[in-house]
Amino acid sequence: MLFLGLFVLILAKEAMADVNCNPDLASNKLSLDEIRDSLIRQEDTIVFCLIERAKFPLNPKLYHRNHGFTGSLVEFIVRETEAIQAKAGRYENPEENAFFPEHLPRPLVHPRKYPKVLHPSGASINMNKPIWDFYFNKFLPLLVADGDDGNYAATAASDLACLQALSRRIHCGKYVAEVKFRDAPHEYEPPIRSQERDSLMKLLTFEAVEEMVKKRVEKKARVFGQEVTLNNTVDGGKYKIDPLLAARLYDEWVMPLTKEVEVEYLLRRLE
Amino acid sequence: MLFLGLFVLILAKEAMADVNCNPDLASNKLSLDEIRDSLIRQEDTIVFCLIERAKFPLNPKLYHRNHGFTGSLVEFIVRETEAIQAKAGRYENPEENAFFPEHLPRPLVHPRKYPKVLHPSGASINMNKPIWDFYFNKFLPLLVADGDDGNYAATAASDLACLQALSRRIHCGKYVAEVKFRDAPHEYEPPIRSQERDSLMKLLTFEAVEEMVKKRVEKKARVFGQEVTLNNTVDGGKYKIDPLLAARLYDEWVMPLTKEVEVEYLLRRLE
Repeated sequence: MLFLGLFVLILAKEAMADVNCNPDLASNKLSLDEIRDSLIRQEDTIVFCLIERAKFPLNPKLYHRNHGFTGSLVEFIVRETEAIQAKAGRYENPEENAFFPEHLPRPLVHPRKYPKVLHPSGASINMNKPIWDFYFNKFLPLLVADGDDGNYAATAASDLACLQALSRRIHCGKYVAEVKFRDAPHEYEPPIRSQERDSLMKLLTFEAVEEMVKKRVEKKARVFGQEVTLNNTVDGGKYKIDPLLAARLYDEWVMPLTKEVEVEYLLRRLE
Repeated sequence: MLFLGLFVLILAKEAMADVNCNPDLASNKLSLDEIRDSLIRQEDTIVFCLIERAKFPLNPKLYHRNHGFTGSLVEFIVRETEAIQAKAGRYENPEENAFFPEHLPRPLVHPRKYPKVLHPSGASINMNKPIWDFYFNKFLPLLVADGDDGNYAATAASDLACLQALSRRIHCGKYVAEVKFRDAPHEYEPPIRSQERDSLMKLLTFEAVEEMVKKRVEKKARVFGQEVTLNNTVDGGKYKIDPLLAARLYDEWVMPLTKEVEVEYLLRRLE
């Protein structure tokens, strides 16, 4: 049993190379396979975050603009938490984009040198405004129950975790676009030169892949959102979030916004 | 399909009553069944947090005391994040205990009125010092790989999520103790009057239940930590964290510290 445990632990520890979309610092290589592994791992994070947010009801007071702050309570908490994380160097990582990027404090720790693999014009794309809007205005009311349980701080921390996970996933589109461009510049250069948004979107769209992603996310919501008891050996059909809603999140917002990032990135790729 | 989705959604939204250990505000009732449901739901949260922390290597720089702060970088991030959450009223909830409770700012929002079900002497118990110590010094090195990937802010946010989930679970011991005392005061009063720690510990220990909890947590780590693909129908035997380590976390630290909270609470229950 101890040996088995050790073996599993080694496996678990080896499976960790797929956190980042940006390339391995040592090799500086950027491959579509690695980015895909990272995107697949990020699905788990996103589903966990949704399940955790759904523990709380809507808690609408968080989103009202009547607390005497500039903006809502959730804006206050996100802005202040981002400021702390900026001090710890979060936004030095080109995969991370702040929701309130204005006036972020400088890192207090010596920032890591991230390899510059992204084209500078595209690296600065920040899609967090539409992410914020769809998350709070469209998606959240579908995810959670109505009501107010007073757990505002915990709920807002949970919202921030969801937003950061979604933002990271969607902005990985920059890396997807960069590697696709490098792999086939002859395909991308003509529509980039003529700034044809629709042609680029068509080049980047693979419906069969998107269907597969939606199905996998739905399955993850089912597996991670099930009630695990010692007796059940099969999924009891009762889930903490609606698996179809997780698929819809990807269908309506995550995948379209990722492609939007990719298109925006490519449009600037030859600047 | 739409109807099925709606049905599942309703189920999911109904399943949310088990977030809190403290009683339903409307009914002011406190039952052991409800507390148990909450503790079981919190296992999922804890396992999710561990899986997310294990995405990152140890990142030891977070824990060194050489950044020019008072304390380590992780201390700085936890202290500052707790201060923001205090402003949003987190610590008005008697289930929440801060890791740096000194000088917490006052809430900026009108705090909710939580029912006073805990005995005042026991309500102030804070076990976060031993939680912090075992988490960083004993548990974390077993959970994560060695190494430094520079994601300090994200790693610290992940540590904080783990710490808060563990703290909440362990401090629920106050509610467990209160309800057990109320259910059988004649059993608890003699050892409380004679301040017999060991007798109280014996009254609170049910080995069969503890075995079941460990098994269930291990199973949750297996279910939630598996690699979900569209093809696999059975668990592929590869996990993001070692399931036995999750069980060990409960065995060596979570359950003993919860009982420690219960004993401390009871020792003060007749003050």
